Amino acid sequence: MTDRVNGSPVRVALLGSGGSIGTQAVDVLSALGPGYRVTALATGTNRALLAEQAARLRPAAVSLADDVALRTVELPAGTLRVGGADALVELATRDDVDLVLVATGGMVSLRPVLAALAAGKIVATANKETLVAAGHLVMPAARARAAEVAAHDPTGPLASPLGWLRPIDSEHSAIWQCLAGEGIDGVERIVLTASGGPFLTSTTAELELVTPARALRHPTWSMGAKITIDSATLANKGLEVIEAHRLYDVAYDAIDVVIHPQSVVHSAVLFRDGSLKAQLGTADMRIPIQYSLTYPARVASPAAPPDLVATGALTFLAPDEGRFPALRIARAAGIAGPRATTALIAADEVAVARFLAGSLDFPGIPRMLEEAVTRFGAAGAAEPDLEEVVALDAEVRAAFAGPARSGGGGGT
Amino acid sequence: MTDRVNGSPVRVALLGSGGSIGTQAVDVLSALGPGYRVTALATGTNRALLAEQAARLRPAAVSLADDVALRTVELPAGTLRVGGADALVELATRDDVDLVLVATGGMVSLRPVLAALAAGKIVATANKETLVAAGHLVMPAARARAAEVAAHDPTGPLASPLGWLRPIDSEHSAIWQCLAGEGIDGVERIVLTASGGPFLTSTTAELELVTPARALRHPTWSMGAKITIDSATLANKGLEVIEAHRLYDVAYDAIDVVIHPQSVVHSAVLFRDGSLKAQLGTADMRIPIQYSLTYPARVASPAAPPDLVATGALTFLAPDEGRFPALRIARAAGIAGPRATTALIAADEVAVARFLAGSLDFPGIPRMLEEAVTRFGAAGAAEPDLEEVVALDAEVRAAFAGPARSGGGGGT
Repeated sequence: MTDRVNGSPVRVALLGSGGSIGTQAVDVLSALGPGYRVTALATGTNRALLAEQAARLRPAAVSLADDVALRTVELPAGTLRVGGADALVELATRDDVDLVLVATGGMVSLRPVLAALAAGKIVATANKETLVAAGHLVMPAARARAAEVAAHDPTGPLASPLGWLRPIDSEHSAIWQCLAGEGIDGVERIVLTASGGPFLTSTTAELELVTPARALRHPTWSMGAKITIDSATLANKGLEVIEAHRLYDVAYDAIDVVIHPQSVVHSAVLFRDGSLKAQLGTADMRIPIQYSLTYPARVASPAAPPDLVATGALTFLAPDEGRFPALRIARAAGIAGPRATTALIAADEVAVARFLAGSLDFPGIPRMLEEAVTRFGAAGAAEPDLEEVVALDAEVRAAFAGPARSGGGGGT
Repeated sequence: MTDRVNGSPVRVALLGSGGSIGTQAVDVLSALGPGYRVTALATGTNRALLAEQAARLRPAAVSLADDVALRTVELPAGTLRVGGADALVELATRDDVDLVLVATGGMVSLRPVLAALAAGKIVATANKETLVAAGHLVMPAARARAAEVAAHDPTGPLASPLGWLRPIDSEHSAIWQCLAGEGIDGVERIVLTASGGPFLTSTTAELELVTPARALRHPTWSMGAKITIDSATLANKGLEVIEAHRLYDVAYDAIDVVIHPQSVVHSAVLFRDGSLKAQLGTADMRIPIQYSLTYPARVASPAAPPDLVATGALTFLAPDEGRFPALRIARAAGIAGPRATTALIAADEVAVARFLAGSLDFPGIPRMLEEAVTRFGAAGAAEPDLEEVVALDAEVRAAFAGPARSGGGGGT
């Protein structure tokens, strides 16, 4: 692992450079200057964006999901085009990569993440599937690498409770920041904050009439459509509870969710001595993206600092799992195990897509989640390996997709 | 330095076991069990309390301010009685002491603190004079010892920005906790919170009529009379600004004071990347006392954890330096240098005593502070050594004490 301490730049593979996190990661990496170099770059489908980013960042190797498009994208001379089913694995494990920044959605990054960890790379990830569906595979791999390093450097910055994994989600970054310099055995509870979404005060009857257009109006964060709907159902927070359990190895009954409409406190950690540490900031993902790259150092950022006096009041209330059952369903799935959490996150992707397409009403989303967890997530089943996780994901998606199968939705 | 890592108990000298911090420190040390042992114990005047604490803690050596009282206090057989002018220095530098916990008020601890640091002891301090009057002497000594250790353990827990010093004040403990695992070069601003005291919304006219009885009713913390009045004038927060400058080597214009009436956020640190970390807790000094002993570890405490949902709202507003000029005066004193800060803290002790005795009105307190800083704290003068600090303190007290000299007070 090359890092800034010994003077060489940190060499980054950016997987998923076209989405909200990916494009912001490109901006952060560009602003960080010569201490960081993007050596590998993968985008899903946006050929023009890849061409533009490649011209700006000059990676050694690039990839697109579509091999045909990859062959015709305009690139600086000498840029390697990496295609085929294993393209992301190839990029993530290159010799000239120290850190893999995962900004893709979906299951596509699972194999590259595990391969990168096995190859000794640091993995900074904003991808939920990495932890929700495959956390039982990813975290042992991440911690195994850290254990190797810790043997040489027992108190150093690499002895993070997450091993080689670095979270980018604002909540998990907040918790990780609160844990800097702390032992994981000093943790009493994790406190995940949730904005509560646009329907925080809506009645059950009102929730039945929610339209996609209204659900996409998030009060505090500007994000992609999927995560905005997940915020409105609190499914997003439910997935984060599962992620917190995986990342910090904290029991489910020691993970609290607190509604905090201002989204200034990004999350907090309660320690055994009664002291609570919280991380606060403006709603700007460039801060956690940058911290995942510069950890444990802090460097200047274009993000505005939070202004407590201007904010005036930070408020906190308990979530209503009656009106927002996704939280309860996710917690139960987490306790049931990785088959249930894989079913949950796969069904959520289908449910949100169907809600946005108009073929599922808003309360149908948590109903579909509950049905998926019940049908596919039997507790006590053996933990699935990577192939089984990927197969289960496909099976759940197929079961709930399309108008013929209404799943748990449709107002039943 | 013996610590818990290698199995031996941490041996503590407790200076000032009779006050609010001292008695709570005795409780915390007792509850911590065999990992901590009080080997030296000094109380000011309360003979009966010393006898009781000595029976409970079985220190090897004890002291009282009055040598005659010391000779007659009942102690377990074999307890050494240490009297004379250098008693606290003797206790603080004993071979069987690893950590000196300073819970005295006033200048009496300056010499023992410097001697303890020179002898390689860790110093945990709740004493404001240590930093406000003598911070220019204490911090270099504390950092010099840490530099020695850091040479052997560059990233370890002992590489605190404070060196061998550990703050107990809730605000400074909060900042110190937020700095765990962080580099001091990553700090952008320090945010000190203040309850605002009982007169937060009082008009200037109302402040002129404040009685000692009303000023002693602090809204959130239960403390001694001196610090309660200092909270009401904001002089306490002004002294903490000076302490923060000394402890964290942060410029005065990078130290903010924010009024936070709930006293749940104890203070915060803004980092260069726009991320803000805050430490929250109930108003219970046992938490920072314990952390100063167990740092960097966290262990269970009887203190209740903060309950964000029950608190409901955390509010923040800018301080009004027009109505509460002590804050402005303290900041100016800090910028002027250690003669000014020594004059400030000495005058404040006199001013508060006179306010409580009825010979100075409430607005007279900041007027006396301003006069003291102006008369005795000439900017640009050479930094006083320890003897000069002690002499200046006595000179300022003499100048403002007694009804004959009304100082800046008396409603002029």
